[in-house]
Amino acid sequence: MLDQIYTALEERYPKMVEIRRHLHMHPELSFQEVQTARYIANFYKNLGVEVRTEVGGNGVVATIKGSKPGPTVALRADFDALPIDDEKDVPYKSKVPGVMHACGHDGHTATLLVLGEVLHELKNELNGNFVLIHQHAEEYAPGGAASMIKDGCLDGVDVIFGTHLWATEPTGSIQYRTGPVMAAADRFEVTIKGSGGHGAQPHKTKDSVVIASQFIMNLQQIVSRRVNPIDSAVISVGNFEAKNAFNVIADSAKLIGTVRTFNENVRDQIENEIEKVLKGTCITADAEYEYLYDRGYPAVVNHKDETELLVKIAKEIPGVTSIEETEPQMGGEDFAYYLQHVKGTFFFTGAKADHVTKPYPHHHPRFDFDENAMLVAAKALTRVAFAYQQEHAALESVK
Amino acid sequence: MLDQIYTALEERYPKMVEIRRHLHMHPELSFQEVQTARYIANFYKNLGVEVRTEVGGNGVVATIKGSKPGPTVALRADFDALPIDDEKDVPYKSKVPGVMHACGHDGHTATLLVLGEVLHELKNELNGNFVLIHQHAEEYAPGGAASMIKDGCLDGVDVIFGTHLWATEPTGSIQYRTGPVMAAADRFEVTIKGSGGHGAQPHKTKDSVVIASQFIMNLQQIVSRRVNPIDSAVISVGNFEAKNAFNVIADSAKLIGTVRTFNENVRDQIENEIEKVLKGTCITADAEYEYLYDRGYPAVVNHKDETELLVKIAKEIPGVTSIEETEPQMGGEDFAYYLQHVKGTFFFTGAKADHVTKPYPHHHPRFDFDENAMLVAAKALTRVAFAYQQEHAALESVK
Amino acid sequence: MLDQIYTALEERYPKMVEIRRHLHMHPELSFQEVQTARYIANFYKNLGVEVRTEVGGNGVVATIKGSKPGPTVALRADFDALPIDDEKDVPYKSKVPGVMHACGHDGHTATLLVLGEVLHELKNELNGNFVLIHQHAEEYAPGGAASMIKDGCLDGVDVIFGTHLWATEPTGSIQYRTGPVMAAADRFEVTIKGSGGHGAQPHKTKDSVVIASQFIMNLQQIVSRRVNPIDSAVISVGNFEAKNAFNVIADSAKLIGTVRTFNENVRDQIENEIEKVLKGTCITADAEYEYLYDRGYPAVVNHKDETELLVKIAKEIPGVTSIEETEPQMGGEDFAYYLQHVKGTFFFTGAKADHVTKPYPHHHPRFDFDENAMLVAAKALTRVAFAYQQEHAALESVK
Amino acid sequence: MLDQIYTALEERYPKMVEIRRHLHMHPELSFQEVQTARYIANFYKNLGVEVRTEVGGNGVVATIKGSKPGPTVALRADFDALPIDDEKDVPYKSKVPGVMHACGHDGHTATLLVLGEVLHELKNELNGNFVLIHQHAEEYAPGGAASMIKDGCLDGVDVIFGTHLWATEPTGSIQYRTGPVMAAADRFEVTIKGSGGHGAQPHKTKDSVVIASQFIMNLQQIVSRRVNPIDSAVISVGNFEAKNAFNVIADSAKLIGTVRTFNENVRDQIENEIEKVLKGTCITADAEYEYLYDRGYPAVVNHKDETELLVKIAKEIPGVTSIEETEPQMGGEDFAYYLQHVKGTFFFTGAKADHVTKPYPHHHPRFDFDENAMLVAAKALTRVAFAYQQEHAALESVK
Repeated sequence: MLDQIYTALEERYPKMVEIRRHLHMHPELSFQEVQTARYIANFYKNLGVEVRTEVGGNGVVATIKGSKPGPTVALRADFDALPIDDEKDVPYKSKVPGVMHACGHDGHTATLLVLGEVLHELKNELNGNFVLIHQHAEEYAPGGAASMIKDGCLDGVDVIFGTHLWATEPTGSIQYRTGPVMAAADRFEVTIKGSGGHGAQPHKTKDSVVIASQFIMNLQQIVSRRVNPIDSAVISVGNFEAKNAFNVIADSAKLIGTVRTFNENVRDQIENEIEKVLKGTCITADAEYEYLYDRGYPAVVNHKDETELLVKIAKEIPGVTSIEETEPQMGGEDFAYYLQHVKGTFFFTGAKADHVTKPYPHHHPRFDFDENAMLVAAKALTRVAFAYQQEHAALESVK
Repeated sequence: MLDQIYTALEERYPKMVEIRRHLHMHPELSFQEVQTARYIANFYKNLGVEVRTEVGGNGVVATIKGSKPGPTVALRADFDALPIDDEKDVPYKSKVPGVMHACGHDGHTATLLVLGEVLHELKNELNGNFVLIHQHAEEYAPGGAASMIKDGCLDGVDVIFGTHLWATEPTGSIQYRTGPVMAAADRFEVTIKGSGGHGAQPHKTKDSVVIASQFIMNLQQIVSRRVNPIDSAVISVGNFEAKNAFNVIADSAKLIGTVRTFNENVRDQIENEIEKVLKGTCITADAEYEYLYDRGYPAVVNHKDETELLVKIAKEIPGVTSIEETEPQMGGEDFAYYLQHVKGTFFFTGAKADHVTKPYPHHHPRFDFDENAMLVAAKALTRVAFAYQQEHAALESVK
Repeated sequence: MLDQIYTALEERYPKMVEIRRHLHMHPELSFQEVQTARYIANFYKNLGVEVRTEVGGNGVVATIKGSKPGPTVALRADFDALPIDDEKDVPYKSKVPGVMHACGHDGHTATLLVLGEVLHELKNELNGNFVLIHQHAEEYAPGGAASMIKDGCLDGVDVIFGTHLWATEPTGSIQYRTGPVMAAADRFEVTIKGSGGHGAQPHKTKDSVVIASQFIMNLQQIVSRRVNPIDSAVISVGNFEAKNAFNVIADSAKLIGTVRTFNENVRDQIENEIEKVLKGTCITADAEYEYLYDRGYPAVVNHKDETELLVKIAKEIPGVTSIEETEPQMGGEDFAYYLQHVKGTFFFTGAKADHVTKPYPHHHPRFDFDENAMLVAAKALTRVAFAYQQEHAALESVK
Repeated sequence: MLDQIYTALEERYPKMVEIRRHLHMHPELSFQEVQTARYIANFYKNLGVEVRTEVGGNGVVATIKGSKPGPTVALRADFDALPIDDEKDVPYKSKVPGVMHACGHDGHTATLLVLGEVLHELKNELNGNFVLIHQHAEEYAPGGAASMIKDGCLDGVDVIFGTHLWATEPTGSIQYRTGPVMAAADRFEVTIKGSGGHGAQPHKTKDSVVIASQFIMNLQQIVSRRVNPIDSAVISVGNFEAKNAFNVIADSAKLIGTVRTFNENVRDQIENEIEKVLKGTCITADAEYEYLYDRGYPAVVNHKDETELLVKIAKEIPGVTSIEETEPQMGGEDFAYYLQHVKGTFFFTGAKADHVTKPYPHHHPRFDFDENAMLVAAKALTRVAFAYQQEHAALESVK
């Protein structure tokens, strides 16, 4: 049965590439993916697959019901592009100026569509159901995942798997991690409101530059002294602006920064501690402040059993040559929301061809990936899904 | 004799006003005062007064030799204007867009010209000589004083007196101070050169915002711990710029600030201490730096005997109703250089009319002053000069 | 065979208790454990077991050779006591004033001795050899492990297992962790050498209290900005001393602190960064410093395969009711050294009886533990050793 | 008349020395000067001078009424000693172990007693009255001056003069200053109350050492940014104590320091600012604090007219070779209180013999002074008092 699927996928590889290149030439920005959503929906409609559109926005959800009982597995692919001008010199270059699939979501979509087609054809032999989640707007907070979940895309789902083609790791490799694998990425903005004046008369002012410097020094203690040393956390101030003549004391200073965490409690703690340090620092100088803390996606926290399942079966997947534990990544992903609702795991599928020595990183205007990796991804998603269904078959039959 | 001069000045008050208003309508920026210099030179030439032009630039020096022996007294008036648009609604409003006599130098010049005319007429009765220094470029470092001195304007001069019309103090008042009366005003620029990166990966960077904040905190100790508490000193950072996205760690940070001191040793000490603190702070973080320290004018340090002489005779001057000690002012003045070469004192002549309650400050687009104060200034300069000549007559006769 | 051992251990439980209580009544401090070492050596000699004494100091090593081929497994128990006065009111209370087995090493020793006796009796059926390492001086750096290794205690050993009775976790539970499980615990000492003077004349001094405060503030950035956020690290200054009259500025300030890390690179990095921050801070103020960094034990880093082996077989061990992953502990253990030489794992064996709700922590004058846990520990060490020998039998037979 | 007094003083110089040496051998600590007070009182009683004892404690006040009208001049000498062991090797060495006239108050007393005797003898020719204030307890706050004033010692007094023999300036010199001449010297105590714990677990603590360091850094801004740069101010933390094991985080930290100011507003400001900085700093870390601020003597602020009078007549005083302006001194003096009630000036009388190159400073166990300076002091006090009486005679006669 697995072999049957693997073979079917291999036969359809040219189609996968064709779809991917079509999408690559017609990228759409997050929350504006109307044509892409229609393309996906039509694909399934033409096959006769049950499909819901406009799920939580531009989301599309296809469902394939196996004729035998078994757990329901969701697989997810995102399909939005980025506001980057495509600088590659390839026939399938973006046709939309300033918009580009610079993160591989086109590949994710092609992979899942073709896998969907194969699963549909073999549905009489499937031990359970498949929910194929085509998600819009992964690149731009608040993202599409949260609204699709709210609109029911996970209803009846037992487990979810997702993968990201990863252009800096070799094709054939898979990177996994139990627990936090991608960080929560938040943004904060602080305005110190002192009171300005002549540089020669500090006593008539509340010097915002000094107060803000003091705040930044005091801020270091949150990570160094207050967060549990076992937990990872970063607080970085990227922007410090107090633009004045050399002999003028700053009226106000504006700081903008980011917070990265893997644990929601630490995230809450840091949001509070920053304000505490800010408040106390301003009190030392009779100054006022404004404080904004915008939460980005939460951390992607992989479930243990599902991740270990992936590790266990990975080497059996044709084309997979290695499976490695990855360090947590500091980037964000709204796959995080699915894992807050159902079990599952999110992994990386290497997509760097052997002949590429210095791949362009994701989000680069010359970004591209090894299309062969789509086949690996399709097989890996299938294999882990089947392994899950097999493991949970007994339980299901009891239900 | 003094009464004769006072009367002559009073009679010529309308002329003083006329000259001042003419200059007010035709202001010229520092180092560009060609017409003004010619106006002044012609004034003296028409009277038959000995006059040197192009002294150290656009400077003009007139000399009036008394027929009796006595010390040589220099009196100084500056004549440059500011890059400010005149917003006053008066008949003598500036005719040059963007240029304005917003500091009263037009008044200084009118005062000295008319006083020169009077002294010239009475030269047969003068006990000594007068050197009338009309200085260009006081508003803009390096200023005109230094180059005029280099070009000989103080040759043979025994003492110098100067005054500034002061629009925020009432006409009739004089403000004096022995010792430092206006601060040395310097400018510094610091660039912290760390190494930037992603906000989520501080360990791969040298965070310039944190290093610069630490530098600013450490900087406070120069004034609080290292300068003799008896000495006044200010170090202010007016500008802090590190403009980045919220999730980018700053590659470099630029600070610009000012230093104010009254004592050359303290000035030297601070220039050195800033670099020491900067160097050490950068070493803590393996960062690099650039440091520029630009010296403005030195402190104006009034000589004791000449200042006390002014105080002693002040109340005898018709029109002077009060003489007060002023606190040192943090602003700069290149009169400082004259006092490094010869004895003398620089004082303020109140120039606020009674009916004005909230005078516009110097350098304001609506700045103006009470023209009656010019008469007070002329009399005060005369009186203190004569007092000096009288006191030093014995000495002179011995020479 | 395993059942045979379990039964033999259970039958000898009273003897285990007897030995433990004898040792508890006769504790000896680290590096002074002469009687305890003799007691252990005699125990083996009386059984006819091959035993080496004075191994790397007071260490004792017994070897039991199985008659069948197989890997050599080392088991380790430490036997030193602490300089604490026993405040318990029990018949087996310490008879030595000021010295007490307040960490359970008496229990470790009794466990291993009785297990050794049982293994010796069944040696004809053992598939490999056992090296029983009775280690002196675990409580006091540089510890006994390093010198015992140097003296050959690990020669021919394939793997090592060790456990610590843990009085704050319930008997029946086992705590494990792959990778770093206990921290490297170092000590540092910093002396800031400024130059003192009268509190009213800061400019004539280099104020050590301010410099040391600045150093402590700057120090925070090592953890907050320079260590990889994925790695755990702690730098704490426990002691700050600058004792002076209120009106005297400190000549010097002394700081003493600790550094905790789990990764040798981070450990090296922090040792260097502290000095860099210290050096730079002193340069800002022309001060001098002294810096001492004393390394304690390295981190205990458990090997993956051996730890997973423990997890796999843990539930089969009679008396073990749960097996849990523990967070890394910040305390130190010189078991760390063994794991730098051979594979293995160090785990905790819960030793809190059900009726105890608030157990006294380790190193407390009223510390005690549930003696039944010794039986669990003996069985767990046996079980994991046998599992290892079984898994590696094939390899051995090939050798 | 002045010559008559000068001669009388010179004739009685041996007596002055004798008195001084007697007192030097019998020093008494502040507030315990019973014998010294009796000695002074008896001296006046034996002469028939009107004398009040137990004035505000151990104070003694003698009054000499001139037979001619004129202002009443107070002269003050303090008479307490210090808790220092006399290490000099001279015949008049202290006979009281651990107590010593190490500041010259014995000389002040001898000077005033002998001057009193002379004035008493010539009282028929005096143009006004003399109040001779022999003050106890100058060395130890709250001092004797405040209570003596409360007990009426300044009643009817028009002006006060006082001098301090100054062993580091040459005999023959006088040091004066208008305005603040000695600082207000206060003491503060800060306890930071965090919460301690294990050095490896900072997140479970509030680290008092870090909080206190942050407080000290933040404290620097009070002097560097908030006090008017024209005003002098010092805040020094002399004592920092947080004594703990290297691996224990401090529960609390104790700081003790001093504040020096010349201006009561600045003094008030600093007392408040310290608490503001402390409060804000503790809020940043959820810590608590205790804050004590003890005021010592206020600044000694000399009156202008009286100081200028001294300068004017100084060179006429036999034995005075120079009169110099001194920088403000940071030490304290309760003469400050007298000057808050009546006009006057406090000056220094050089007391270093020519042959002494490195005089021991005041409060040193080997301190001594040139006794000839007592004669200079007596003449200077006389001269300035007479000058005052002469200047104010007209006014008095009008009264």
